[in-house]
Amino acid sequence: MSGAKTAAGSSPVKICIINGPNLNLLGTREPETYGTQTLADINAEITGKFPACEFEFFRSNCEGGIIDKLHEARESADGIIINAGAYTHYSYAIRDAITAVSVPVIEVHLSNIYARDEFRRKSVLSEVCKGVICGFGAAGYSMAVDYLISVTRTEA
Amino acid sequence: MSGAKTAAGSSPVKICIINGPNLNLLGTREPETYGTQTLADINAEITGKFPACEFEFFRSNCEGGIIDKLHEARESADGIIINAGAYTHYSYAIRDAITAVSVPVIEVHLSNIYARDEFRRKSVLSEVCKGVICGFGAAGYSMAVDYLISVTRTEA
Amino acid sequence: MSGAKTAAGSSPVKICIINGPNLNLLGTREPETYGTQTLADINAEITGKFPACEFEFFRSNCEGGIIDKLHEARESADGIIINAGAYTHYSYAIRDAITAVSVPVIEVHLSNIYARDEFRRKSVLSEVCKGVICGFGAAGYSMAVDYLISVTRTEA
Amino acid sequence: MSGAKTAAGSSPVKICIINGPNLNLLGTREPETYGTQTLADINAEITGKFPACEFEFFRSNCEGGIIDKLHEARESADGIIINAGAYTHYSYAIRDAITAVSVPVIEVHLSNIYARDEFRRKSVLSEVCKGVICGFGAAGYSMAVDYLISVTRTEA
Amino acid sequence: MSGAKTAAGSSPVKICIINGPNLNLLGTREPETYGTQTLADINAEITGKFPACEFEFFRSNCEGGIIDKLHEARESADGIIINAGAYTHYSYAIRDAITAVSVPVIEVHLSNIYARDEFRRKSVLSEVCKGVICGFGAAGYSMAVDYLISVTRTEA
Amino acid sequence: MSGAKTAAGSSPVKICIINGPNLNLLGTREPETYGTQTLADINAEITGKFPACEFEFFRSNCEGGIIDKLHEARESADGIIINAGAYTHYSYAIRDAITAVSVPVIEVHLSNIYARDEFRRKSVLSEVCKGVICGFGAAGYSMAVDYLISVTRTEA
Amino acid sequence: MSGAKTAAGSSPVKICIINGPNLNLLGTREPETYGTQTLADINAEITGKFPACEFEFFRSNCEGGIIDKLHEARESADGIIINAGAYTHYSYAIRDAITAVSVPVIEVHLSNIYARDEFRRKSVLSEVCKGVICGFGAAGYSMAVDYLISVTRTEA
Amino acid sequence: MSGAKTAAGSSPVKICIINGPNLNLLGTREPETYGTQTLADINAEITGKFPACEFEFFRSNCEGGIIDKLHEARESADGIIINAGAYTHYSYAIRDAITAVSVPVIEVHLSNIYARDEFRRKSVLSEVCKGVICGFGAAGYSMAVDYLISVTRTEA
Amino acid sequence: MSGAKTAAGSSPVKICIINGPNLNLLGTREPETYGTQTLADINAEITGKFPACEFEFFRSNCEGGIIDKLHEARESADGIIINAGAYTHYSYAIRDAITAVSVPVIEVHLSNIYARDEFRRKSVLSEVCKGVICGFGAAGYSMAVDYLISVTRTEA
Amino acid sequence: MSGAKTAAGSSPVKICIINGPNLNLLGTREPETYGTQTLADINAEITGKFPACEFEFFRSNCEGGIIDKLHEARESADGIIINAGAYTHYSYAIRDAITAVSVPVIEVHLSNIYARDEFRRKSVLSEVCKGVICGFGAAGYSMAVDYLISVTRTEA
Amino acid sequence: MSGAKTAAGSSPVKICIINGPNLNLLGTREPETYGTQTLADINAEITGKFPACEFEFFRSNCEGGIIDKLHEARESADGIIINAGAYTHYSYAIRDAITAVSVPVIEVHLSNIYARDEFRRKSVLSEVCKGVICGFGAAGYSMAVDYLISVTRTEA
Amino acid sequence: MSGAKTAAGSSPVKICIINGPNLNLLGTREPETYGTQTLADINAEITGKFPACEFEFFRSNCEGGIIDKLHEARESADGIIINAGAYTHYSYAIRDAITAVSVPVIEVHLSNIYARDEFRRKSVLSEVCKGVICGFGAAGYSMAVDYLISVTRTEA
Repeated sequence: MSGAKTAAGSSPVKICIINGPNLNLLGTREPETYGTQTLADINAEITGKFPACEFEFFRSNCEGGIIDKLHEARESADGIIINAGAYTHYSYAIRDAITAVSVPVIEVHLSNIYARDEFRRKSVLSEVCKGVICGFGAAGYSMAVDYLISVTRTEA
Repeated sequence: MSGAKTAAGSSPVKICIINGPNLNLLGTREPETYGTQTLADINAEITGKFPACEFEFFRSNCEGGIIDKLHEARESADGIIINAGAYTHYSYAIRDAITAVSVPVIEVHLSNIYARDEFRRKSVLSEVCKGVICGFGAAGYSMAVDYLISVTRTEA
Repeated sequence: MSGAKTAAGSSPVKICIINGPNLNLLGTREPETYGTQTLADINAEITGKFPACEFEFFRSNCEGGIIDKLHEARESADGIIINAGAYTHYSYAIRDAITAVSVPVIEVHLSNIYARDEFRRKSVLSEVCKGVICGFGAAGYSMAVDYLISVTRTEA
Repeated sequence: MSGAKTAAGSSPVKICIINGPNLNLLGTREPETYGTQTLADINAEITGKFPACEFEFFRSNCEGGIIDKLHEARESADGIIINAGAYTHYSYAIRDAITAVSVPVIEVHLSNIYARDEFRRKSVLSEVCKGVICGFGAAGYSMAVDYLISVTRTEA
Repeated sequence: MSGAKTAAGSSPVKICIINGPNLNLLGTREPETYGTQTLADINAEITGKFPACEFEFFRSNCEGGIIDKLHEARESADGIIINAGAYTHYSYAIRDAITAVSVPVIEVHLSNIYARDEFRRKSVLSEVCKGVICGFGAAGYSMAVDYLISVTRTEA
Repeated sequence: MSGAKTAAGSSPVKICIINGPNLNLLGTREPETYGTQTLADINAEITGKFPACEFEFFRSNCEGGIIDKLHEARESADGIIINAGAYTHYSYAIRDAITAVSVPVIEVHLSNIYARDEFRRKSVLSEVCKGVICGFGAAGYSMAVDYLISVTRTEA
Repeated sequence: MSGAKTAAGSSPVKICIINGPNLNLLGTREPETYGTQTLADINAEITGKFPACEFEFFRSNCEGGIIDKLHEARESADGIIINAGAYTHYSYAIRDAITAVSVPVIEVHLSNIYARDEFRRKSVLSEVCKGVICGFGAAGYSMAVDYLISVTRTEA
Repeated sequence: MSGAKTAAGSSPVKICIINGPNLNLLGTREPETYGTQTLADINAEITGKFPACEFEFFRSNCEGGIIDKLHEARESADGIIINAGAYTHYSYAIRDAITAVSVPVIEVHLSNIYARDEFRRKSVLSEVCKGVICGFGAAGYSMAVDYLISVTRTEA
Repeated sequence: MSGAKTAAGSSPVKICIINGPNLNLLGTREPETYGTQTLADINAEITGKFPACEFEFFRSNCEGGIIDKLHEARESADGIIINAGAYTHYSYAIRDAITAVSVPVIEVHLSNIYARDEFRRKSVLSEVCKGVICGFGAAGYSMAVDYLISVTRTEA
Repeated sequence: MSGAKTAAGSSPVKICIINGPNLNLLGTREPETYGTQTLADINAEITGKFPACEFEFFRSNCEGGIIDKLHEARESADGIIINAGAYTHYSYAIRDAITAVSVPVIEVHLSNIYARDEFRRKSVLSEVCKGVICGFGAAGYSMAVDYLISVTRTEA
Repeated sequence: MSGAKTAAGSSPVKICIINGPNLNLLGTREPETYGTQTLADINAEITGKFPACEFEFFRSNCEGGIIDKLHEARESADGIIINAGAYTHYSYAIRDAITAVSVPVIEVHLSNIYARDEFRRKSVLSEVCKGVICGFGAAGYSMAVDYLISVTRTEA
Repeated sequence: MSGAKTAAGSSPVKICIINGPNLNLLGTREPETYGTQTLADINAEITGKFPACEFEFFRSNCEGGIIDKLHEARESADGIIINAGAYTHYSYAIRDAITAVSVPVIEVHLSNIYARDEFRRKSVLSEVCKGVICGFGAAGYSMAVDYLISVTRTEA
């Protein structure tokens, strides 16, 4: 995945990446599904690949905490990427928080959630996100960043 | 909506008003659905209208925090008004907390939840609340306070 | 529940209160659920509490009769309060009649219909009413009147 | 229920017992369903009955807090007992956290959840726990401890 | 799992253990799910572990035979343990027979039925049993015996 | 979206892009949902952006034709991108054809199918694709190409 | 079906028989399902067979009219027999009226409603009636009268 | 829509047109859905267009009244056209009345009921009508009359 | 309930009454639901009331045994009365056996099965029986006998 | 059914009539349901009846072919009549093609699809068509043509 | 259907054919569905057609008896053919018994169960059988025997 | 599987074997499910085994093409064997084509479709086919041919 080149002197694209419950275990839990990279590895890779962006990385097991962060990021970020873990499947409260955000919010899943347990095939968030990327492992985050950069540039 | 007049010298009716996730965004989020008043405006209006009541206003995005507050209020309040936001639709844990409360708990919604998305038409809390008021905007809280005052007076 | 005070000289708020099937049995049928007041008692109480309003009280076991009355009231009333009894759960014909009304229509239930039989938990009317009030016994009608007065005053 | 006798000199079996929302109200809430013992009473009884075990008792109303504790206990305990209260019925996030644990996790419920409200009859956790014990009141925890001791001994 | 010690001179606790269809194949059928012990092995182990109990072991592939035995045991036993095999999932007739029993009936399953085929996740018996134990292999029977001894002692 | 740079002399990555029913109308049909670019515009843009790739563009309204092409491409392409239009929601025959392909197949949708009609929220293809990208308009194809290049490079 | 003999001098058993929509067409509509007797024939037969009873026969196509009659009969009759025609399948308003009656109400159907169209297999009335008789043609009314006489005699 | 020409001297085709609940509001209620013609306008138009027919126009909000009229028309009319309004969706009693009619009964709806609210997409009447015409506004009635004339002529 | 008088010299009506699982416990099990009469009491009462009939009483907990008896009775009886207990709700095998019988088979239940647990509200037998009688306690059997006598007389 | 008269000199109304799978068998397949006319007979009849129209008749068993034709006709026709045969019940691809057409599209079925197999009662096309005509045999096509002529005239 | 020829001197293929409830009535019950051959006729025909096989024919109305026979046959037979009658649709106990058999088990039905009552369209056995043959009358058994011979020969 | 012997001089039995989507991949796609024989191998084997039959082999990925062939074969063949691949699960258009065929049509599947993905367990074709054979691999075609020969002989 190639990183976006940004023109010198332009202000950075501010992106907030929110990871939800159990994603702190990445690299140790079910590596055959989620790969062996830790979340820190992934975040470092993203930071390296997109030097012209300014990232805020947030992770929490707490539904309320994720909502708080979404409220905050709606003011401070140009785009939001969210992997809400299992909250994806039932948190209408996170959904409502996303609805209140006007910058684009992109839903990312490491695994192909449509090829797993029945309950994982339904996301209550997708309806209110800009788009969904799933099944590409850690590359999914980069694909989302790539897209956010392109639309931010276009609109600016 | 007229406020209740209470006789001089009687002890105040203690009412705890609990607002859940995303309600801190009132006034800014989807004003066509929720109006332009902020939650602070609404609380001030209620306080002004019912001088003989003692209010505790609590708001949180956190399911656990709402449960904690319900536990606390079951001892300290004469009545509870709850707008649990999107938790209304799936939090059986909040429902259990309400069941454990013996003072009346009234469920309030600003919008008419039965005239919105399918998932909003089901409240898992209604079955264990005293009653439900929805669709009247901020006036719903006052209607609930009015009712709580009247039953508290009657029982005293 | 305190009654609304209206300024001398203003024209009365005209409110039509429609009660549906079996509500004529109030006070005799299942008093543990519906209380011991008769419908006449309730109507008298409402009339007494809101002297500045002009009430029309209508009750019928007949779906068609209720529809006829809704058609009539859409011209003659400033607001409508309806407790459609069991028709609440399946009368799409009454629902259509409510849709045709432009003054606010408020759905009231004496008992908390969400805490009773499964079939009572669904109202086909709620989606097209302004709001819903349930579980407060006869006080529910007064809460609705209170609200109708406040919005009529505001708009006038 | 008899406590297990452990040979002198062997290292203690470390067991983490996690109790979820509203279980702090034990002894006061619905005693006809949950008995009159408080959670402190139950914990004391368990500690007394199994002197050769080392217990960590954790209780929280917060879904995120329970997940945090499960992550911690997967390193520090030989076995986990969880009564997730109402989260049992919808927390796929807690379920994912249990999946990430390799020591045995046992689901316990004080009441027979299959003989209560419809929504309580489905546990989203059972599929990923070692086993389920429900309906035996506080004795259920001891039955689970007994089992954890026996399998730990066997494997050692 | 330690056996209960009973005081000399006390009358034995009479326990009837009923095993249903296909459980005669234990040890030969799907050993990866059900283990390699035969039912005779399990019964011998239970008898050895609880010398102060008097056991009746019954096994049948026949729904009617299981009902007959439940009718008989309701008079002769202090407690009943039942593993109804696949009848668990549809035999309302066995359920009715259990309802007619006043001594405690405990439902046991060797495997965790909630982690297997969809049709196994529903037991029509659980609602009318005292409690449910599943997922602990043959140890489940001992856990049930332990519990029956403790409640019989308490009540005596 | 930046195109991938490929080292001089390496063989091109062969990618087959399959578009299904009604996608020939792009640019004229429902532009508010699908944009004003025609399919030819999009294809030209992709070709321009990824000079190191060799593309085959196929479009058909015919389910059988799409299956034929998938059979062909499983031999000739390094990766496949498919936007099966409305066949996405019921063509188990296309699904079977995808299953028979061993190179990665990526499902792309221009619009966010989870935010539209109920019937569009279910894809019968997702379960057998490598991953899903939806909601990003024509950019979705480029995101998929980017990913296919990266994995082909890695594996080579 | 033999009629009941009643001792001379006893007061007659007052029975109200309510027939609902379309039953006026008996004898002409679908005779292969409903027989060739008219409702008048059936009523005459019943009157003849039970000379010691006093019958009121009521028939209406109107849901509201049936409810009115049930309200009236709850005061004046010793027992009520109702064949509510197609209202059987959806009239929760008639159901509520039956609930308000304290004398026994028996549900009768000429045909076996469980052997006909799917929608006819569910009666919303059965749950609140004393008992149900269906499939015996006009004889079903006599069976119901026979039963009402026997219970009235017993209780007297 | 052209009217049918009938040969001089032939007896008129007798057609009964039944309109159900809320259709009296045509022209005033939701004109964007139902048009601005009143029912009187439509009836006049039909009468004018088909001089060789004899029309009976009936309208009622009352389910029972519609059934009464159907019973009557089965003797007096050569064909029936029914727009049962919202009763279409749940009145099995009207359905039964239609079944008892042997002349052709045609179901007409002004709007395309399959393109509106979910509950409007199911008609319980269609199964027992000759045919269904919907979505053509007032023209639907004429289309039905045209058809009734043609089949009456053919059969005569 | 009066017994039928049969003319001297006529051959007796042969009736087979089949009772299914758990009905041997009548009089001891849940007397508030099923009364205090034993099955022997009921049978004696029936025999006494209908001297002109020849009864065969059969009871079994075994599905297969009930089927065997139905096969036998189809040759030897003039009519069959069956109370299949809980098999009513799922035994398609008993249903098939009833289908193979050409004499009338009447389904009887002591309690009103439509006013009890959800699973009891569905009978898989009703569709293939002549008629259903439920909710009248032991009197239900007599009502069925009465009917069988009357149709046998009529047909003879 | 009378044909429409069109004024001399006006340009013809261009109507495309699309028939789907198996309709080539008309006249030979299930004549009791579909009549004995062949599709050629029907087309000839329509052509004869509406001399002022210009018809294109298209028939195919192929879903893709029908979509192709719809794309073509959206430019060339003033109105489209479609009988999509069994594709009616599941072809969301045809539905999408209809959505892309701006001239009126009318859905016609020979038989009353609501009075046949369950799967035929749902049309996925109706929601996006102008209107639906079903149950009138071949006359349905003429009714649709009549309507198309009238609206084309009106708009012109 | 031709019988298989087996080479002289080879040991016979041992096949157990199990027929379930009501199949003893073959030839007398519903001959239009099941034909006029009795089960004895069918068995004789099979025996005659396959002289090189050794057959055991078992038939029972009893679920438990069928399970017992399956347990026995898993040791003694080279293949099993089962027509479980109505148990096919709900006996998970028979299903479990089939799972425990390692020789091939073939499910046979005389009629095409997918073209009959809804409840007959689901077999709980098919998932665990080798294959299913239905709709070919008694020939289905021979088809199954033919297959069993061929696979037994192949494997030997 | 033995081939049928046909008497010299008789006209051959004409059988059309239709294979649907993806079956051209046999031998290469998922060999663990479908075996290693190609479709050509299977066809050759069938031809060799039944010299007295005249076969037409047709295979297509196109739903429309399969329907065309069925229309053709209804005139030219004595029997049809169809393996419609994934179209089995949703093609009501193919189902309608089969309904129009009067020679016997047999549904064959290589694998046991009832033991695979949920969506494969439902065939919309079975209801209109003569019978179903599944789970026996390529042998299933021969079993079907065998049966077609036998019924053709019998009827001739």
